Amino acid sequence: MLPTVAWKDDHVLMVDQRKLPGQEVYVELRTAREVARAIEKMVIRGAPAIGVAAAMGLALGVTKSRAKGSAGLAAEFYRLCDVMAATRPTAVNLFWAIARMKSVFSDAVRAGRSADEIGGIVVTEAGRIHDEDVACCRALGEHGAALLPDDGRVLTHCNAGALATGGYGTALGVIRAAVEGGKRIAVYADETRPFLQGSRLTAWELLRDGIDTTVVTDGMAGSLLSGGKVDAVVVGADRIAANGDVANKIGTYPVAVLAREHRVPFYVAAPTSTIDLATADGEGIPIEERSPREVTHVGSSRVAAEGAGVWNPAFDVTPHRFIAGIITERGVCRPPYGESLAAACVRG
Amino acid sequence: MLPTVAWKDDHVLMVDQRKLPGQEVYVELRTAREVARAIEKMVIRGAPAIGVAAAMGLALGVTKSRAKGSAGLAAEFYRLCDVMAATRPTAVNLFWAIARMKSVFSDAVRAGRSADEIGGIVVTEAGRIHDEDVACCRALGEHGAALLPDDGRVLTHCNAGALATGGYGTALGVIRAAVEGGKRIAVYADETRPFLQGSRLTAWELLRDGIDTTVVTDGMAGSLLSGGKVDAVVVGADRIAANGDVANKIGTYPVAVLAREHRVPFYVAAPTSTIDLATADGEGIPIEERSPREVTHVGSSRVAAEGAGVWNPAFDVTPHRFIAGIITERGVCRPPYGESLAAACVRG
Repeated sequence: MLPTVAWKDDHVLMVDQRKLPGQEVYVELRTAREVARAIEKMVIRGAPAIGVAAAMGLALGVTKSRAKGSAGLAAEFYRLCDVMAATRPTAVNLFWAIARMKSVFSDAVRAGRSADEIGGIVVTEAGRIHDEDVACCRALGEHGAALLPDDGRVLTHCNAGALATGGYGTALGVIRAAVEGGKRIAVYADETRPFLQGSRLTAWELLRDGIDTTVVTDGMAGSLLSGGKVDAVVVGADRIAANGDVANKIGTYPVAVLAREHRVPFYVAAPTSTIDLATADGEGIPIEERSPREVTHVGSSRVAAEGAGVWNPAFDVTPHRFIAGIITERGVCRPPYGESLAAACVRG
Repeated sequence: MLPTVAWKDDHVLMVDQRKLPGQEVYVELRTAREVARAIEKMVIRGAPAIGVAAAMGLALGVTKSRAKGSAGLAAEFYRLCDVMAATRPTAVNLFWAIARMKSVFSDAVRAGRSADEIGGIVVTEAGRIHDEDVACCRALGEHGAALLPDDGRVLTHCNAGALATGGYGTALGVIRAAVEGGKRIAVYADETRPFLQGSRLTAWELLRDGIDTTVVTDGMAGSLLSGGKVDAVVVGADRIAANGDVANKIGTYPVAVLAREHRVPFYVAAPTSTIDLATADGEGIPIEERSPREVTHVGSSRVAAEGAGVWNPAFDVTPHRFIAGIITERGVCRPPYGESLAAACVRG
């Protein structure tokens, strides 16, 4: 399994995804603030992976705290929770993981545990979040694999793979499970400007697993679909609203519209930790806008004309009516999503 | 006006569009084969500009020929026509310009003109093709400008500007004419991977004219349209089939589908030389596939994972039903395009 993120007692280890596939560089993060910065700078990205990293970062914060007494420790912990929450606004798994960590932390404090004991508890919880995420990917992979043809072509956008999760992947978990189950799946990967998660990360991790992968630019998805070259679209999600509207990497919505135009099923694969029942619909999902430099430059080279304005929203919202099914670890949710998503969340 | 391409008696001058906007480098091409290579390598691109360059290249071929007698000159000229025709398959202006040059050449040969006289005739014809192209852009700009709001936002894809034509531009000619007519137009330019004609060329030439331009990645067009940020889409064309199906830069079709989804008018701007009545519909338009390197690399840097397959079609086809109007120098053609396009071609 890819070492997307790992707990190493006194540090958190992660591969620097900004440098893949050219360089496989691992970074050791020794404080919660370093983990927060890594999330913000996209050393690690992908909603479930961000959740896991945030939990590990908070565990680091507690175990390395020099605060005296539980009040001091709590003050520091909650401050670090705020720092972590301010890194990226769209992926709800971040807030979900922080909430879980807050919950076990406050339970431990209320139970009068020592600082050492609290440290052990939060480290255990972060590990649990990591393990559960991998288990979710495996389970949703199985559910999703059943939706794919025995011999077919799947289009995906961005990277919803092992690198975007604790391991195995959501959209790519579906593809991996299908391949492991004996299906012959060829993958088309949108390159996914501006960060190129598709050509850099999805192609890299699928090729490592021997899965046939063809990269196209984002604008080519239309020709793939109109040319009958795609049997199903599977993407991940950064936040799923209660009504089934899905925020995912910018460029997802155009693929969904094209898929419907050509009657190709468009699936979203995500753990239930990505479902945000508190947000009624896509309108309520905050969309992060990132630096213009991601658009004007590729690596260190400027590509865009000097002086041009730039708009760089990192995500878009696909309305639920474009989505054939939302694949979770508890099964495939179907429309009407208001009911099926709520049921999936409760079923836990 | 931008020096996209110019006749300089013993050479053809053009700005190397691969190096814009970082460097404004001019190349002097002294033979027809050098011009053909420049077209193939995209030193110059854009359907009308390719037509102009091809005509000038053939004029160079005739004026620099050392063939003895009209039979030798003719053999050389037709060989160069074949070389020119083999450069890029989709833009029909290339074949249209070659056909015009063949026509005046063979008339001159039949009339018993001397090699010097024939040279003068083909140079004059190439100049006429250039001048007419600029005049077409100005005229279609006026027709198209009337379709834009007094105060609005226009989305365009690729570069259908001065750099893609003899000068002034088709889609950007419409925008320029609207601005010159006092309308307040802000432009969104899709960056247009893989060759980045939008962020490199469209932004560069519009900013030179003081027109407000914002660059987005191709996948952001969906969010622009769903967010109500676009009043009209205007793009160019590389070939328009008799039924109104339009081949244009890859990524155009997704924008057309999204525009229809959001009830935003999608216009195509092109001179009638881009209309190919001999091709019944989009199925008959040959779509050039270019080197994988355009997708795997940006400049000299590899971005995609090693070993990934690549599919790199340079154009896509937008079916006529998505197109609100085709803006030509002879007015705006409306559906049914079978009739209106034929009428526009005859009206000349």
